[in-house]
Amino acid sequence: MNRFVRATSSLWMAAGLAFFAVPGTASAAEPTLSETDFNEAKTLFFQRCAGCHGVLRKGATGKSLEPEANKAKKSKGTLALGQKKLERIIALGTEGGMNNFDTILTEDEIKKLATFIQMPVPEPPEMSLAEMKKTHKVFVKPSDYPKKPMHNRNWQNFFLVILRDAGKVGIIDGDTKEVVTKVDTGYAVHVMKESSDGRFWYTQGRDGRMTKIDLWMDPPQVVAETQVAYDARDVAVSRFGKWKDKYVIGGGYWPPHFVILDALTMEPLKVVSTRGVNVDGEFVNEARVAAVYDTPKAPSFLVAVKELGQMWQVDYSDIDNLRIEQIDTNKFLHDGFFDPTLRYFQIAANASNRMEFVDTVTRKSVGSLKTGKKPHPGPGANWVDPKCGPVGATMHIAEGKLTTWGNDPKGHPDQAWKKCYDTPLDGGGLFIRTHPNSPYVFIDQALFPEEDVHQSIKVVDKKTGKVVKTLRITEHPGAKGLHAEFNKDGTEVWFSVWATQGKKDWKNGEIVIYDSKTLKEIKRIKGLETPTGKFNVYNRVNHVT
Amino acid sequence: MNRFVRATSSLWMAAGLAFFAVPGTASAAEPTLSETDFNEAKTLFFQRCAGCHGVLRKGATGKSLEPEANKAKKSKGTLALGQKKLERIIALGTEGGMNNFDTILTEDEIKKLATFIQMPVPEPPEMSLAEMKKTHKVFVKPSDYPKKPMHNRNWQNFFLVILRDAGKVGIIDGDTKEVVTKVDTGYAVHVMKESSDGRFWYTQGRDGRMTKIDLWMDPPQVVAETQVAYDARDVAVSRFGKWKDKYVIGGGYWPPHFVILDALTMEPLKVVSTRGVNVDGEFVNEARVAAVYDTPKAPSFLVAVKELGQMWQVDYSDIDNLRIEQIDTNKFLHDGFFDPTLRYFQIAANASNRMEFVDTVTRKSVGSLKTGKKPHPGPGANWVDPKCGPVGATMHIAEGKLTTWGNDPKGHPDQAWKKCYDTPLDGGGLFIRTHPNSPYVFIDQALFPEEDVHQSIKVVDKKTGKVVKTLRITEHPGAKGLHAEFNKDGTEVWFSVWATQGKKDWKNGEIVIYDSKTLKEIKRIKGLETPTGKFNVYNRVNHVT
Repeated sequence: MNRFVRATSSLWMAAGLAFFAVPGTASAAEPTLSETDFNEAKTLFFQRCAGCHGVLRKGATGKSLEPEANKAKKSKGTLALGQKKLERIIALGTEGGMNNFDTILTEDEIKKLATFIQMPVPEPPEMSLAEMKKTHKVFVKPSDYPKKPMHNRNWQNFFLVILRDAGKVGIIDGDTKEVVTKVDTGYAVHVMKESSDGRFWYTQGRDGRMTKIDLWMDPPQVVAETQVAYDARDVAVSRFGKWKDKYVIGGGYWPPHFVILDALTMEPLKVVSTRGVNVDGEFVNEARVAAVYDTPKAPSFLVAVKELGQMWQVDYSDIDNLRIEQIDTNKFLHDGFFDPTLRYFQIAANASNRMEFVDTVTRKSVGSLKTGKKPHPGPGANWVDPKCGPVGATMHIAEGKLTTWGNDPKGHPDQAWKKCYDTPLDGGGLFIRTHPNSPYVFIDQALFPEEDVHQSIKVVDKKTGKVVKTLRITEHPGAKGLHAEFNKDGTEVWFSVWATQGKKDWKNGEIVIYDSKTLKEIKRIKGLETPTGKFNVYNRVNHVT
Repeated sequence: MNRFVRATSSLWMAAGLAFFAVPGTASAAEPTLSETDFNEAKTLFFQRCAGCHGVLRKGATGKSLEPEANKAKKSKGTLALGQKKLERIIALGTEGGMNNFDTILTEDEIKKLATFIQMPVPEPPEMSLAEMKKTHKVFVKPSDYPKKPMHNRNWQNFFLVILRDAGKVGIIDGDTKEVVTKVDTGYAVHVMKESSDGRFWYTQGRDGRMTKIDLWMDPPQVVAETQVAYDARDVAVSRFGKWKDKYVIGGGYWPPHFVILDALTMEPLKVVSTRGVNVDGEFVNEARVAAVYDTPKAPSFLVAVKELGQMWQVDYSDIDNLRIEQIDTNKFLHDGFFDPTLRYFQIAANASNRMEFVDTVTRKSVGSLKTGKKPHPGPGANWVDPKCGPVGATMHIAEGKLTTWGNDPKGHPDQAWKKCYDTPLDGGGLFIRTHPNSPYVFIDQALFPEEDVHQSIKVVDKKTGKVVKTLRITEHPGAKGLHAEFNKDGTEVWFSVWATQGKKDWKNGEIVIYDSKTLKEIKRIKGLETPTGKFNVYNRVNHVT
């Protein structure tokens, strides 16, 4: 077996050429686990911790969890913290924004995790294009796709609902509120994106498994799939000009890369590594793809390379001579949304407490705004403010605050990319959303530790910027309320109740539907396993925010 | 000390999430060296072997030298070959094109190297922008630069000569043939490039030390330096439009990256990693920058990323929103030259036995030509062939052959990027060169094992494509004859005699000057320590080939 020793990264100068470390051995006092326990802890770490701390445990949204101290990262190292303290942090969370995991993991699992993170970081493997091709499956050949919808439902008002821990997507008829079907996807789908007409939906699992769903089938079903990574988050479909519906892109956390696939067959075509040098001039091996988007005004995908603090605008008009703009912004890029003209992209740089603004026509950064602690807009929200004109808005992970900014450089150049106002909320959350036919903006507070807060949605009046109501959408123990999505005509707003306390609690997951003007509850759709994000076909196709 | 275990790279699928290897220990039977011997062998490997086999020993121009077998690379692994066989290969070379090293290394050094390459590969460190900045030295402030030449020499006919093993550059007056000075540079400078007027010269050492030399000083001297890598090969200066003489780029072998510096002060500004996914869809950690060039027809540098098989066209018009075209060609890219219009770039892909052709205006690949075994044009040669029209040409490392191709897509579209003819030579070499005022093309054969061949230059008539003469430029034991360069008006052609047998032999290095038409010897300039590449100011500024 090969053995690797990491050399010190201090600068080696010419004299002596002594820049490699001599192979050595670890001390005998290291924390250890049996092979079985090690593998179990590794799996748990991947599922529950790697999203914030990284597969290589170098930290990102969460802190560095490397065994040794690292002054640059203000980390004492997990070995210095020790078993007991680590167990307590995992169980109870921290004031810095880390969840408590004692409702999700057993005491034994927490023990193993605490030991695992004191051990050397195991290096995960690469994934080549040839290996991806082996995972490519076509369940229904494109020539066998139906020529018209095989059911009479109003599929443009379908909601696709992530059933996170079940590894499924539920498809709900927005007119009748019936669950049409549940299809198997990758584990914990993070995002779905649609073809230009909304018929096909492409999902990205956290396990890197991408699926293509056809809504015209009866019932809708998965027609093809490909695994493009071991850990992944996002997907997008090309929409511009003659490349409409030609390519799908999948973004990987590990390996850190993106993959361009044939949108028709899901055959992987091209892999591009996102490992690189960050905006501070330091090489980052785990430079993950946080999010990917099609740009309506140019033949390109936007790739948010989290740890680099760079937006990569990847031109898909010639993938053999691939043009990429590496646009310097700030760390760590997370999620974003377009302005109403679909030209400017607005994305969170959460470690910098900033929103970043990119012009997709000139392919350059045009602004950067200091907001609150760890902005996280999710699908985002745009509306017209009486004073500032067109505005975009985000809420925050680590602070109960709504921040709005002007986003109309043509009509309101003085307000563009500058703060309009802040609105205090009760706690940090994940998603903000509105609709032109609703007077309100809806914001969840899913990350705040107290139940009465994380089970409540804040309702802000677009005219005044004030909170006008707090909707407690559930009182089920441990459940969180999150993620607003409107129906096709914007008269209803749907929320997810995520019952989090393990598999036995899945039956208590539900969707709660409110009237988007009167704020009266209309209906509950029950029996949904850990519902999180929802995607209304019409609103997503038409970029309704 | 951290300990790394490399996991198997086989594809891990969703079930079980068991994709990391469990930390383990190496067997006790491994070859070992004392710390002193290990460091000595590591240094020797870096100086003599890494160029072809890679710092990580994964192979490139040379074979993989990893301890374990690797079927994909047709490698048995160095452990299977064993100490004795490895010593024999290092001492005597191979038929595949590897030099014999018994004239360069001692028996003891060969023994240590053979053991070293059976041991686990030590991982070298990264180098951040902040670390590079610490190495940045300004010896003469730009405000103190002389306003006119401080000597009366014809500096446009200066030759800058790499004195390879001495870590110096010799500056020779092409009119008087006097050695004007020798300046300290990085170790074994690989290439130099000039400012737009030829006054300033930028060198790149194999140790990543870049220097800026001012030819107007008396004597010429180094005015600034910066180390940008631990192992490096090439440098280029921006020349296009308003970016003329604004940026210098340095290409790293390790870390695999390129660095853009302020050409005035040598302050490093921007680092971009070249680690990536190769044209076969596989991630390559050691994706080295083989060569860099300015493009006269666009504001960009061409970066040849060796192991990826990609030419990266890096636009320098906005380095904060850096545009890069990743142009797919073939592996492993090495060195190249422009066509006479300075629009098309012609570069060797030596593992594919191909020349690749890139249009720097459209920023796309326009052709690929199968040539002989491992093409290596060095500075290259262009002339007009009576039958094919304008042609470019290369010779080869692993075969005695000159190959020519049409390079005039406008005037001779049928011949463009297609073979014109081959001319057999006696053995493989490194450099080809010609001049409009000479009827001949000059080709060295420095890599062939036999002395009578590697001490001889082949002279080919441009009109017939035939060898008309063989110039035996030295008979000094162990010396090699290589690298033609013309004086300013093309009447003389200069060759290097590289005395290779260790430091005591340095005094026997010389330059031999011939009349470029009569092929008569004119003069020998003696006492030059291991001279290799030479750069005539006027010819380089004006792209004379």
